[in-house]
Amino acid sequence: MLMVDLIKAKRDGGVLNKEEITFIVSEYIKGKIPDYQVSALLMAIYFKGLNKEETLDLTLAMKDSGDVLDLSGIKGVKVDKHSTGGVGDKTTLVLAPMVASIGVPVAKMSGRGLGHTGGTIDKLESIRGFRTDLGEREFIANVNNIGIALMGQTKDLAPADKKLYALRDVTATVDNMSLIASSVMSKKLAAGSDGIVLDVTCGSGAFMKNYEDAKALAEEMVSIGKMSKKKTIAVISDMNEPLGRAVGNALEVREAVNALKGQGEEDLLTLCYELGSYMVMMAGICETKEEGKERLKEAIGDGRAYDKFEEFVKAQGGDADFIDSEDFIKTSIKGDLIAEEEGYISSINCEDVGNASLLLGGGRRSKEDSIDPSVGLVLNKKLGDPVKKGESIATLYANDSCKYNEGLERLKGAFKYSERPFVKEKLIKGIVE
Amino acid sequence: MLMVDLIKAKRDGGVLNKEEITFIVSEYIKGKIPDYQVSALLMAIYFKGLNKEETLDLTLAMKDSGDVLDLSGIKGVKVDKHSTGGVGDKTTLVLAPMVASIGVPVAKMSGRGLGHTGGTIDKLESIRGFRTDLGEREFIANVNNIGIALMGQTKDLAPADKKLYALRDVTATVDNMSLIASSVMSKKLAAGSDGIVLDVTCGSGAFMKNYEDAKALAEEMVSIGKMSKKKTIAVISDMNEPLGRAVGNALEVREAVNALKGQGEEDLLTLCYELGSYMVMMAGICETKEEGKERLKEAIGDGRAYDKFEEFVKAQGGDADFIDSEDFIKTSIKGDLIAEEEGYISSINCEDVGNASLLLGGGRRSKEDSIDPSVGLVLNKKLGDPVKKGESIATLYANDSCKYNEGLERLKGAFKYSERPFVKEKLIKGIVE
Repeated sequence: MLMVDLIKAKRDGGVLNKEEITFIVSEYIKGKIPDYQVSALLMAIYFKGLNKEETLDLTLAMKDSGDVLDLSGIKGVKVDKHSTGGVGDKTTLVLAPMVASIGVPVAKMSGRGLGHTGGTIDKLESIRGFRTDLGEREFIANVNNIGIALMGQTKDLAPADKKLYALRDVTATVDNMSLIASSVMSKKLAAGSDGIVLDVTCGSGAFMKNYEDAKALAEEMVSIGKMSKKKTIAVISDMNEPLGRAVGNALEVREAVNALKGQGEEDLLTLCYELGSYMVMMAGICETKEEGKERLKEAIGDGRAYDKFEEFVKAQGGDADFIDSEDFIKTSIKGDLIAEEEGYISSINCEDVGNASLLLGGGRRSKEDSIDPSVGLVLNKKLGDPVKKGESIATLYANDSCKYNEGLERLKGAFKYSERPFVKEKLIKGIVE
Repeated sequence: MLMVDLIKAKRDGGVLNKEEITFIVSEYIKGKIPDYQVSALLMAIYFKGLNKEETLDLTLAMKDSGDVLDLSGIKGVKVDKHSTGGVGDKTTLVLAPMVASIGVPVAKMSGRGLGHTGGTIDKLESIRGFRTDLGEREFIANVNNIGIALMGQTKDLAPADKKLYALRDVTATVDNMSLIASSVMSKKLAAGSDGIVLDVTCGSGAFMKNYEDAKALAEEMVSIGKMSKKKTIAVISDMNEPLGRAVGNALEVREAVNALKGQGEEDLLTLCYELGSYMVMMAGICETKEEGKERLKEAIGDGRAYDKFEEFVKAQGGDADFIDSEDFIKTSIKGDLIAEEEGYISSINCEDVGNASLLLGGGRRSKEDSIDPSVGLVLNKKLGDPVKKGESIATLYANDSCKYNEGLERLKGAFKYSERPFVKEKLIKGIVE
């Protein structure tokens, strides 16, 4: 099999079979097919696409390029959740203890963040003492004992995806539906759960800018999941503004804890109830979505969800009380972005908000960067809110005046105003199952 | 300037400006842009194309990536000729002395062949004593003294084209009109002539399989030539069968010499007169094509063309008389491909014919291979010829029985027969100027 012939076949609109796709992925990961041939193939795929079968084959080949987690030691139906990305997305921090508190076993392996999307691991590490480097045995024992554990990625999951993604990133071949879907699903399938609930974000702050594209991506991923014999469902959610108000590691943890305590932001809770209800249904705990939501609301209302969070943090060496202390978010600089005009907030550029947090010191510009957990920002105004001149639009936290100014400048440019009231889109835009 | 942004721009159908194209070529040749980004760009170009301006900019950037020959020391209008490739193409061997004999200065730098298309240098080196390693001074002196010189490529002409072509070859990005045109023209422009006559082949044995594509390629190349202020013209010629009858180095030299002596194959002479008449017009020797052809026929008829060849060979240390000797083509094995059926030859697969010669030992499979100059084949039947069972279709020359059998087998598969008389296409299909 010659790689140049496979590139030519795809270039000319042909279909690659399972054997060919497996050959490409396995030889590439071994270094036997050079980057320059793979990037040419990726660009040909960008133009000619992959059909359902090819996308599945690519997903499975990437999944099989590394370890596949064995969660069989955990009792019950394990359900994983994945978001295609957004700014201020702290759903995992709320969802995981919430569903665990009513009996869904949560065994989650998470990565660190790169760029403005801080990872769940980074966020949890802002809690004093919290350990994410559990061994596999402790991880499984914790899930069996208290129903929840979350650890940093130790196993080599879908390394072919990692290698391919790095190549796509520098060759303008990221934004292809099939490639995005197979990238996400290869990692999810390797993570070993029985079911997968996908949060496909949609809007200016998401990969998919419009509903049609988000729906197509959701369908592609759900199709891959089902063909791989995993229960899979996708919720399409709006990402035209950050989720909740906090952006930054410790700030997001505190916002999540508030939600677990029943004082959550409406959009964050709405999304968590929506995703959570599908997780509890998949786990066989409820029959209907409505029942699922009811049960989750009860768990928040009577404190079980927060108690589970506290138990989880403690089991991994952390101190949940620390989150409420003043020291948890303590920066030398705290200031506000002040409105210079009057009107209604009609647009929030999520990328700018995320980058503002990055500039403040809350994200990584490269893999080696360390994160300042306390810095970040809290939005005091969101889409559609009326604003008067002189009001605070956001509060910023930093430990370096230079970074503060950079972050403030970037954040300033993120907002647009309209004279007339602005009605924002609804959060839950659709379900693909 | 970020390469990934340029790839994205082309991917999305944008136009790259001169500065961007020059950046890509010059940074690539310095090794500062990796192959994998360039191959992704090439595939994007394959799908989105290059406009006339971009193609010219690419051509010039590749030309300027290395040396540009200075032929100003040679008196008169220097005219170069280039063929887009075919099997049995010995036109340069006939054309160069023929046009030189009536006053067109011929200063040609040629490459060696790779694959089944043996280079002019390889062919000339089959003549005992012939030197192609002239210094630049001797090269120019010879042209000024006797009107003709031909040397192997010493200067580093268009190295970016060489590097890009090697990458295109392994990434299925060769067959794009603009890329082919800019590749040819960058080398031609670097070769320093005042005018360029292009032979754009068309048919099963050529890059361009049909007339429309060949015409488009011719137009693209002529347009580049003119925009670069060079007189440029293209002849579109048929390549559905080898040109002449001989395929192999010494065999082709002998066939060319026969043509110079007035006993040429009709197709070979027709093409040489056609191309030659444009060369003499460009050189300002004649006003009309008809007059040019007349003058060239006279030069063949009265022996001047052959005399010039003899003078040229002698000046470069060779012995032209050797070509007529028995030793010039002396192989241990000589045999025939015998017709097993009756009919008219309706198709000759040029690639198979070329590869048969390669298998006999007449071409290079890799750069390091040495060539056996005597081996090759002579077609006794050509397209449209009637064939009786038992007749010889071709005579093969080899020095190794194993290679002989391989070559014979390959050649056998090259022919197709029809029951009814077959009328072949005319040789000269069009002119683009």
